[in-house]
Amino acid sequence: MSQTETMPESPNPFAQGAAFIDGDYVPIAEARIPITDWGFLHSDVTYDVVAVWGGGFFRLADHLDRFFRGIGKLHMQSPHDREAMTEILSECVRRLGLEEAYVKMTLTRGTPPPGSRDPRDCENQFHAFAIPYVWIATREKQDLGLNLTVSGVPRISPDSVDPTVKNFHWGDMVRGLFEAYDQGGDTAVLSDGKGNITEGPGFNIFANIDGRLITPASGVLLGITRKTVIELAESLNVKVDVGTLSEAELRQADEVFISSTAGGVMPITSLDGNPVGDGGPGPLTLRLRQMYWDAHGDGKYVTRIDYR
Amino acid sequence: MSQTETMPESPNPFAQGAAFIDGDYVPIAEARIPITDWGFLHSDVTYDVVAVWGGGFFRLADHLDRFFRGIGKLHMQSPHDREAMTEILSECVRRLGLEEAYVKMTLTRGTPPPGSRDPRDCENQFHAFAIPYVWIATREKQDLGLNLTVSGVPRISPDSVDPTVKNFHWGDMVRGLFEAYDQGGDTAVLSDGKGNITEGPGFNIFANIDGRLITPASGVLLGITRKTVIELAESLNVKVDVGTLSEAELRQADEVFISSTAGGVMPITSLDGNPVGDGGPGPLTLRLRQMYWDAHGDGKYVTRIDYR
Repeated sequence: MSQTETMPESPNPFAQGAAFIDGDYVPIAEARIPITDWGFLHSDVTYDVVAVWGGGFFRLADHLDRFFRGIGKLHMQSPHDREAMTEILSECVRRLGLEEAYVKMTLTRGTPPPGSRDPRDCENQFHAFAIPYVWIATREKQDLGLNLTVSGVPRISPDSVDPTVKNFHWGDMVRGLFEAYDQGGDTAVLSDGKGNITEGPGFNIFANIDGRLITPASGVLLGITRKTVIELAESLNVKVDVGTLSEAELRQADEVFISSTAGGVMPITSLDGNPVGDGGPGPLTLRLRQMYWDAHGDGKYVTRIDYR
Repeated sequence: MSQTETMPESPNPFAQGAAFIDGDYVPIAEARIPITDWGFLHSDVTYDVVAVWGGGFFRLADHLDRFFRGIGKLHMQSPHDREAMTEILSECVRRLGLEEAYVKMTLTRGTPPPGSRDPRDCENQFHAFAIPYVWIATREKQDLGLNLTVSGVPRISPDSVDPTVKNFHWGDMVRGLFEAYDQGGDTAVLSDGKGNITEGPGFNIFANIDGRLITPASGVLLGITRKTVIELAESLNVKVDVGTLSEAELRQADEVFISSTAGGVMPITSLDGNPVGDGGPGPLTLRLRQMYWDAHGDGKYVTRIDYR
């Protein structure tokens, strides 16, 4: 096709994504934030991501709880309450016009008055956008399982940056990703620099060791998918240790999977190129993955969106 | 004044700042980056700040060297070479129309194609802006000296995020600042979590102990103002130890000062509310401050800007 021809366009200008910026809804390609906002210049920002599946938000209340906790910990204030925020997020999804979506909300410190270096002088800014659902690994890739690399880059210490305040401090994660790609991995998990596993770019991790699930307790985001997996496992009477997962334990696990709002429960079938268990997605992993998606039809978790 | 009245406007639309965004020069208030850029969403970005003083860039070559080294370490590529970049920065200053300016350049990872989570798929983006010169502490405040707080928050480890790649991972710095404000401090310096001092938000630190200057060697940005101070001190035959500065040593120092492109050499006269030395700016600090500003007239450091 020559460059002078044009691609057929969707009749919906929001088909690639709908954003809420400064009180207006705009197509995602036009969604921009001030270069002077300390959310960019100091990564002084918290965020959350909630999935829309089958036309409803999944565990929206949990995501909003976490988001508002983070806002408080950063000494910030949201210009919108939960109800107004829910309406903004719903309107983004409505304009996107999809029943499956990835919905991100950010609260940035804002732009200081000229000459100020004091974060208390800033008016905090809320932005949001909905785009088509994002997969860390596609369903096809998940059926094979991912090759995970244990990174030599330690995760930023929780003493320096509180990982329970969902944040964009991904410098260590991105280094881990480039390492993983060099070694043929799909993604990377980071340690705490003392031999224990923490988390990876956008996900928590679980290991099944002798029928018991282990997931790191500290130095990690308290993921909502992680929380869901813990609840589902306990409903199966599978014991879940929220504690310490050493790198040595991870390498001896019968099953390994990662959890994320961007893809759900995703099997890890290879660690640094070596097979996990028999090298295929494990039975507990597949059971929890199925239960996770089934939960998206459970009224107690779902906030239905009125698409009008 | 009622809201219907308007403030008198400068005839120069760039008087508050001039930015280069996507190939266009725009007033700073209109300068925006895509919300989808991983420079924001993953703080996957490096930057530099160069001062303009008396109509010339100060040590521009050093700033560009550092910026390009950081770009390489992040596996990024600049769309502009040094010559083109110098012209863009000059044009920002020209439009701002000031002889004293704070000039920031950023290279962001960019926005991935829809669905991708791979930083290698992104086209890296260069942006820049010039605003009126920024002071961490005004000259009046500097004459009194600053009250510095030694933060309980450790600086992000260099094992996790390389501090020599100038970055926006300021979560620890902002926590330190809020702590400092609570304690009546002007700004904060962070330790490495093992009793040694590192750096603060936007500055390096020096202590004069028995006529010898000490500044931390590792876990810090290799500041250009720091480099200048070291050169100037050595020209005075003052010995400079680039090594380890313990918190205990800092508290016993005869003089303490911080160095930054945003303000130069700035005296610290109080540590956690306790006087440093006799409680006023020290003689070596004042000498180096004077020499620092004098160096802005030195042709070997200055790249003159043609304002036309």
